[in-house]
Amino acid sequence: MRLVIVGGSDAGISAGLRAREVDQDVRITVLVADDYPNFSICGLPYFLSGEVADWRSLAHRTRQEIAAHGIHLRLNTPARRLDVARRVVVTDHDELAYDRLVVATGAEPSRPPIAGIELRGVHVLRSMADAFAVQTLLLEREPRSALIVGAGYIGCEMADAFRLRGLKVTVVEQAGTVLPGFDAEIGRLAQSELERHGVHVVVDTAVRTIGRGRRGLSVETSAGTPVQAELVLVVVGVRPNTALAADAGAATGERGALRVSRELGTNLPNVWAAGDCVETWHRQLERPTYLPLGTTAHKQGRAAGENAVGGHRQVAGTLGTQVLKVFELAVAGTGLRDHGAREAGFDPLTMQALIPDHKRYYPGAHALTVRVTGDRRTGRLLGAQIGGHRQGEVAKRIDTYATALHHGLSVDAMSDLDLSYTPPFAAPWDPVQAAAQVWTASAGRDRPRIMEPA
Amino acid sequence: MRLVIVGGSDAGISAGLRAREVDQDVRITVLVADDYPNFSICGLPYFLSGEVADWRSLAHRTRQEIAAHGIHLRLNTPARRLDVARRVVVTDHDELAYDRLVVATGAEPSRPPIAGIELRGVHVLRSMADAFAVQTLLLEREPRSALIVGAGYIGCEMADAFRLRGLKVTVVEQAGTVLPGFDAEIGRLAQSELERHGVHVVVDTAVRTIGRGRRGLSVETSAGTPVQAELVLVVVGVRPNTALAADAGAATGERGALRVSRELGTNLPNVWAAGDCVETWHRQLERPTYLPLGTTAHKQGRAAGENAVGGHRQVAGTLGTQVLKVFELAVAGTGLRDHGAREAGFDPLTMQALIPDHKRYYPGAHALTVRVTGDRRTGRLLGAQIGGHRQGEVAKRIDTYATALHHGLSVDAMSDLDLSYTPPFAAPWDPVQAAAQVWTASAGRDRPRIMEPA
Repeated sequence: MRLVIVGGSDAGISAGLRAREVDQDVRITVLVADDYPNFSICGLPYFLSGEVADWRSLAHRTRQEIAAHGIHLRLNTPARRLDVARRVVVTDHDELAYDRLVVATGAEPSRPPIAGIELRGVHVLRSMADAFAVQTLLLEREPRSALIVGAGYIGCEMADAFRLRGLKVTVVEQAGTVLPGFDAEIGRLAQSELERHGVHVVVDTAVRTIGRGRRGLSVETSAGTPVQAELVLVVVGVRPNTALAADAGAATGERGALRVSRELGTNLPNVWAAGDCVETWHRQLERPTYLPLGTTAHKQGRAAGENAVGGHRQVAGTLGTQVLKVFELAVAGTGLRDHGAREAGFDPLTMQALIPDHKRYYPGAHALTVRVTGDRRTGRLLGAQIGGHRQGEVAKRIDTYATALHHGLSVDAMSDLDLSYTPPFAAPWDPVQAAAQVWTASAGRDRPRIMEPA
Repeated sequence: MRLVIVGGSDAGISAGLRAREVDQDVRITVLVADDYPNFSICGLPYFLSGEVADWRSLAHRTRQEIAAHGIHLRLNTPARRLDVARRVVVTDHDELAYDRLVVATGAEPSRPPIAGIELRGVHVLRSMADAFAVQTLLLEREPRSALIVGAGYIGCEMADAFRLRGLKVTVVEQAGTVLPGFDAEIGRLAQSELERHGVHVVVDTAVRTIGRGRRGLSVETSAGTPVQAELVLVVVGVRPNTALAADAGAATGERGALRVSRELGTNLPNVWAAGDCVETWHRQLERPTYLPLGTTAHKQGRAAGENAVGGHRQVAGTLGTQVLKVFELAVAGTGLRDHGAREAGFDPLTMQALIPDHKRYYPGAHALTVRVTGDRRTGRLLGAQIGGHRQGEVAKRIDTYATALHHGLSVDAMSDLDLSYTPPFAAPWDPVQAAAQVWTASAGRDRPRIMEPA
């Protein structure tokens, strides 16, 4: 059997490796559009910051490691057309026949209709080529200032990265707070952290045009006075790369992403799809959404690879769990926020508590801002967000909520969990439980309660 | 209604606070045997290390904070006798009438039958009085050497504490490895960390007698040459403090602890009991055990307080989740280990993996030793242990396993969890998932698989 995979990033390589695990005989070919198979897109900010000295270390695996699993990589070979009737993928050079196909064509950076976005010095950041272009500019022209359009997680990470390199940095965000994927209270934590490290943050502001400036570029915004910058980075999200499959008749859905079943099957015969080009099943909403994340791409790729060679693994579904580091701050979230929960028919309430990550008497305690969202009607946990010091185990604390959400736990039952405690790392009621207890009391699902101090 | 609580530590105070939450009118009196209500026993090593400068900060709450909730504290008032027929608790001064009683008399340190254990300079560590006695010795006699009998978690924490104060430290453990509550592989990590910090560790060795030595004490062990030390600390576990209730007819069970229902009721009318003096319901074994931990004491106290004033809250049960810090190492575990699982009728397999806490390309990655125990027959997750750098989010990673265990998740389904990822904090498959995948492959519950690199 011939398995062809189009796309050599997280989903594509995961599919290939998983197919190999469950089928030692299948012939696996991966078409990689560029020269960089299995590179960590999430690692690009740390390469550009200088923290990762050698870009090669951004590869999850080397070509040799992938080849050692009997996976044939064809580099610099974009798939141009898909003929599902004849079961071939057309490249610039040849036609590649398949029995089973996995489409993992990823996403491309959104390019908003800003006049001047095509000017030299204006960059996006998604691929290794994008990263090399920015790196070349940094090394050759030694810019002293950068303007970042978009304060989502990549925008914040790149502000951190550029500051580490000593640039003057301005971030412009259209929404009212940075990190619009989080509640404003968490966004403001991130904004303070950016500002504490010298980043100029402008919210509620649209970028109108980019023109040539005194030294580099001049960016006009809805806020008035143009901002001068020698480098402009536009990071305002991504859109799914669907042309190959869609042109062959694949159905699309949420945000234009390829429509897939929970087994990652498309409507095309013998064609599965996974990663940032497809819809994501949302475990809580019980419907497809578009939430392109590396973790999800790995899970989808793994399932698609298994299913393409005969398996029937369903994805359990996303909760939209994410975490990012902004300087010394960690920000993490999982599940639904108020507006999404309301749209889905829940009766959400979000409560916030400020809780030390460990017993205050032990040195080095950091205050965590913990927000818990629950359904007033049923008491069910709907989501959580945490912001706090990067050494406050924020990332893995959100995982406790994510694991509870996975099982549909109630907010009250968070207190039943037997979580670990020692004074240097936690309190007898972990902050995730103490915050749940604040919610429970406030939601009237319990009598007024006494806050557990740390 | 008059609620009397005997015991002013974690369980007793939790019971009082919870009773107050659900009943604004109940009259609550807590009998505290000493002068230190609601002190953090787990904090004693950090007081003795000097990291906590003021012992007062070890109190979870001040007397005033407790009193502000309408809880009457009677300090230095041990309960001497319980008369359940007359519903009174007898103290040295008076009789205290109750309608409902919560017994939270805690545990006392085990004193093994070692000749010389009563000598000056030999200490145990459980209460504030114990801590003050050790502190006084440290300040007044300025010992230069300490020998610790027992390398459980307090023994390890105290080795850390004494080294911080500059003492020469020897730890003697009867079992084959330090931290006998963990697998030997994890115990050896702790031993290396102790040794790396200059602690002399002697395992497989029993302490026979303690006598007067050249300078201080001379400790004879089964290993031969006596060890000289100016301070000996005996920390070999605790036993439940049950005399008060048992003398009044309370049934006892596991390790002599008070037998309680899952609602924390005893066999005595109107008497509940909680904390280190009672049995603990084990969620996986579905039977009572004796596992005295602060987290459990809080949960039990909370339920006992609620139930004593009319509630019917059942404890969800312990998983034995714990974590400790030994110098720069964090060690954590939850659930069953092989021998316990086998005794319970499971067919356990434990697999170990060495996995970086976050993507290797991002600076500061630490290798985590992750051990996953699962049931070969059903694929069910049974337990997990992690050892690694204290900044590797070890504590809260064990919580993900604990939350999964709470729900009876399979090892394979760990990979379904939507956990958080960013290169500075994790990998697209979190170490807890990567280790689960190693188990799954090894248990033959899956075809051979390819390890996800970080």
